[in-house]
Parts: sequence; structure tokens; C-alpha cells
Amino acid sequence: VRRVAPRLGPGAEFDRIRAIFAGLGPAGRGLGDDAGLVRVGSVTLAASVDLSLEGVHFRTGWLSFRDIGRRAASAALSDLAATGARPLAVLVSVGLPPRPRRVRGDPAAEIMAGVGRAALAVGAHVIGGDVARSRHYLVDVCVLGVARRPVRRRGARRGDGVWVTGSLGGAGRALAALRAGARPRGALWRRFARPEPRVTAGRWLAAHGARAMIDISDGLVADAGHIAAASSVAIELDLGLVPCWPGVPPRVAAASGEEYELLAVMPVRFGVREARAFRRATGLPLTRVGRCRSGSGLRVTDQGEPVSPPRGFDHFAP
Amino acid sequence: VRRVAPRLGPGAEFDRIRAIFAGLGPAGRGLGDDAGLVRVGSVTLAASVDLSLEGVHFRTGWLSFRDIGRRAASAALSDLAATGARPLAVLVSVGLPPRPRRVRGDPAAEIMAGVGRAALAVGAHVIGGDVARSRHYLVDVCVLGVARRPVRRRGARRGDGVWVTGSLGGAGRALAALRAGARPRGALWRRFARPEPRVTAGRWLAAHGARAMIDISDGLVADAGHIAAASSVAIELDLGLVPCWPGVPPRVAAASGEEYELLAVMPVRFGVREARAFRRATGLPLTRVGRCRSGSGLRVTDQGEPVSPPRGFDHFAP
Repeated sequence: VRRVAPRLGPGAEFDRIRAIFAGLGPAGRGLGDDAGLVRVGSVTLAASVDLSLEGVHFRTGWLSFRDIGRRAASAALSDLAATGARPLAVLVSVGLPPRPRRVRGDPAAEIMAGVGRAALAVGAHVIGGDVARSRHYLVDVCVLGVARRPVRRRGARRGDGVWVTGSLGGAGRALAALRAGARPRGALWRRFARPEPRVTAGRWLAAHGARAMIDISDGLVADAGHIAAASSVAIELDLGLVPCWPGVPPRVAAASGEEYELLAVMPVRFGVREARAFRRATGLPLTRVGRCRSGSGLRVTDQGEPVSPPRGFDHFAP
Repeated sequence: VRRVAPRLGPGAEFDRIRAIFAGLGPAGRGLGDDAGLVRVGSVTLAASVDLSLEGVHFRTGWLSFRDIGRRAASAALSDLAATGARPLAVLVSVGLPPRPRRVRGDPAAEIMAGVGRAALAVGAHVIGGDVARSRHYLVDVCVLGVARRPVRRRGARRGDGVWVTGSLGGAGRALAALRAGARPRGALWRRFARPEPRVTAGRWLAAHGARAMIDISDGLVADAGHIAAASSVAIELDLGLVPCWPGVPPRVAAASGEEYELLAVMPVRFGVREARAFRRATGLPLTRVGRCRSGSGLRVTDQGEPVSPPRGFDHFAP
């Protein structure tokens, strides 16, 4: 039996998403992964969509229009990366307020240029789009790719290792600085403004036996919760193992959203030697942060002691 | 050489779209058709996206949330129909204001149910989506299909006939009634609220040699202008031939947008006998409204006399 509503971790946002997708009834198929999968001839197509709204996901005072477009496309490509797919094509809808007089050039063309840059960086092209007048800027990006061996959220088994690419907490730290009126610089700024979708990493991990993957957009803790729910396993995370952005405490790093790294569940035989091979192939660290156990839900420990899970993003929470 | 900016007919909206897509540079590929096309293995995938915004494309006082979702998905599927593709999958992004108290059920679930209904009606499934909090309702629908013999805007040649499915002007008439505070009923209401994407018609026309197609969303005149520009031909439209919704004058019918019928350019040998076969296959009339000539642009005649072209939709016009 196909599940109609995606099996997500706990939280008010996820409760509402479950209810919304339940409205689809038999029209829904294979929901609940970072990307939808559909067979086309002899290949499996992966597709995902990511909506970015002014005032919710970005502010025009924080990012250039080019970076707004690039970041929106990268967010969608990050979902595709989590299935191990090779990106092929991008479609983009843009909502535009009346053109501001003080800005040089057309913000819409700048947004498009940013989307195009993100697409080209992963070997994809922009093949379609729509433009409409709206009260606030919005960018909705749909990405299509081909997955030779698509990885979903539901394949984790007890004993498997839980791994994370890169390091966590930089995006959250940059966001906190911006909210406090400061302007992050250098690597911290790039981390926030120009996240790189982990496409090469996702393909490498899929080719090396990944059982389940998800991109870290809700935060490590919440996204590990989605994997646990979808795979019917418990996940034990050790905060002491979380790879942190310089200066970010592990509890903060583990709750930080929009990090666009990958959480990958690898078979027990996958170890530090394989993680070194991953680093040679991608230039990124790969760190084991936990393990799958029998049971359900999430258990967080710090130096061996159980602790309460740090809270992640929850857009719809009251 | 691939064109980066789509070759569209005249108009302020289309000028801006040209500028916006020019921002893509080499990242753009095959733009300017109702759907983008990409080869995947041995098949050609067609993909299109259509953005519907509250206050621009719909009002919550006019349509139920279910019809809002259904209509948004049908608009996107109509673009796919214009390439002759068979729909496979739908992805949908929904923007949601805080949940209203006076409404029974969750508007988001109702919108999804409508999207799902439109998808199932053409044999497609909803395989992904995104949900975000926004100030106004928005529904962005991305559709994927397979095109055995994809039809574009640019294949029309002089001598070819210009044909239209169904009849035009009903959607415009319903909209005018709503704007005047009236509530259209019966067939007129269904025409506006529940347009049927011409998927079967588009596949039939593609299989029977269509040289170019477009769905009538900007209005017959403007969309014929897009075909003329993309195909480097002139198109002569005879207002007296336009199949009109009961009571709608030809000039009004020829300018009416969001009609979601197909304009198909067929080889000269395609005639009334073939149109009868089309009607048997689809249940729809197919009417020749004009012919392609050498030259460029659009010529409109009425009973043999040249007349000024009626104006169509132009969202960005001042």
C-alpha cells in the first residue's frame, strides 16, 4: 500500500503538511521524499520543487537579486542531491512587484541570472519558466534529474551509520548576525548567500550504497527524525560528534536549518576509510554523527548521556 | 544557434519576459515554447510551470479552494497539451496565509485535492510539493510529460492552416460577469472555474502532423502572434471564422485570454474531413480560423476586409 501522506517526524509544520497531502487521496504517489520519483522509459526521473518567498525565506535587503535566485535554485537542487540524482533541467516561476526605480537593471533578470548560474554549476539548464506580477518577490524552482539508483528516506536499517557532509551551523550563525543588524563576511557570508547543493556528494554516496538520505533543511535533528519515521528505526545522535562551523556550539549546529548539507545513512561496513575516499572525491568532510537502532524516534546523547533534542525549524509552529 | 530569449509576439509583457529570460545567458535552453523539452534516455520529456496568484489569477471569493487548485493545475496541463505530450507527474508549491477561522476544513488540503483531481483526470499523479506560509494564496504547478513527437511554436510554414479547438470567449464572458458582481451559472461557470486541459486533443493533433501548437492563454490574437514570430511566417486570421461561445462577438472571442483551447497549425492537406475525425476522437469541434503566409506578423480580416487586431491580455502593460 502506498502511503498518501508523507511519514514525517514530529512538529506542527509537519502535522499540517501531512493533512495537506492527505487531501490528494489516490492522486498522490511516492510523496515524503526530498524528490518525487517517476519511471520514464528505462530511467528513473527525480523531481523536486522549492518555494522561496520574500519576507519568509529571504529579504531583498540582505541578498542581491542574483543571490536570491541562485539560493532558491540551490535549495531545490539540494533536495535533488539527496536522492543521488544527476540534475538535468530547471523550471522557475517568478513573482514580481512593480519594478523599483532605485535599482539598476531588472530584478527579474538578475534573479534569473542567479537561477541560471546555480543550474549551470551542476550541469543543468533552465528549460522553462513563468512570470507574474505579485505583491512580493517569490521564486519557485522545480528541478529534474535522473537517478540511476534513487535513494529515499525510508531505507535505513538498525546498525547503519548516520553520516553528515560538511559542517553545520554556519547558515544559522549568518542568519543570526543578519537579524541582529550585522553583515557577515567572507566564508560565513558565502555559506549563507551561496550555498552549494551537494550534488556530487549525493551521487557519490548513492553509488557507494547509501540506504537513506535527506538534505539538512529543517536542521539535523528534525531531518534525522524524518529518516527515523520513514525508515521505522530509532536514530541515536551524539552531539559530541556533530561537525560544527567554527564557533558554533553542537546543540545550535544540530538545530540549524537551511544548511543544505546531506544526512546519509550508510551500511555498517562504511567507515573512516570510505569517508576519506569521499573526501578525496568531493573535497568535503564526511562525519559519522550517530547510528540507527531498533525502535522509533530520535535519541540525542552528549558524551554518552541522554539529553533533550535541540529544537529545529518549524515554520508553522504557533 | 539556440535562442536564449524566447521569440514572442509584440507587447509590453512579452518585452519584459524577453529581458528576463535574456538574464539566463547560456543557462537557458529551448525556451519559448509552452513546455520545455529535454531528452532522457530514449524519450523526450516535456515540462512546464504555471504560477497562479491570489488577486492576479484568482480570487478566493469567486472560486472554492478546490477549484482554485484544480484550475491552477489545469492551466499548467494546458501548456503540456500544446506540445502533444502525455502527462505523467505534477509537482505543486502552495503559499498559505494564516488559516482562516470561518472556513471549514484546511484550504491547503482543498487546494491539493483540486490539483490531485486535475492530475488524475489526465492520468498523472502528484509526486511532490512544497508548502510555505505567505501573505496571499499562491499555487505554482509544475507538470511533466512524455512527448513522442513534441510540437513546438516554431514549425509553421506558409500555406499551413491555422485551427482552433472548441470555442472561444466563454472564459472572458464569465470573468466579465464576475467583475460586474454577477455569478455565472451552468456551462459558463464550468468553463471559467473548471477548464479542461486539451490533453487528448493535443496528442491527437501531434499524431496527425501538427507543425506548431500553442494553448490559448493570452488570447487567440496574441498567441497566433507568438506562433508567427517563432515560425517566421505571417498569420492571417479571419474573425468571421472564429468559433465563438454563444453570444460572444468574434472580436471579443479572439482577444479573450485563459481560454485553454489549442491553436494548432496543420499542413495544407488537413481539411474538414480530418476535423471531423478529430471531433469523433475528442468530442470537440476543430475550426480553421486562418492560414500561414510568407512574411511576418499578424493580419486580421473580417469578411475579407483588413481590420485592426483586437487586443489580448498584457499583464505587464502600464
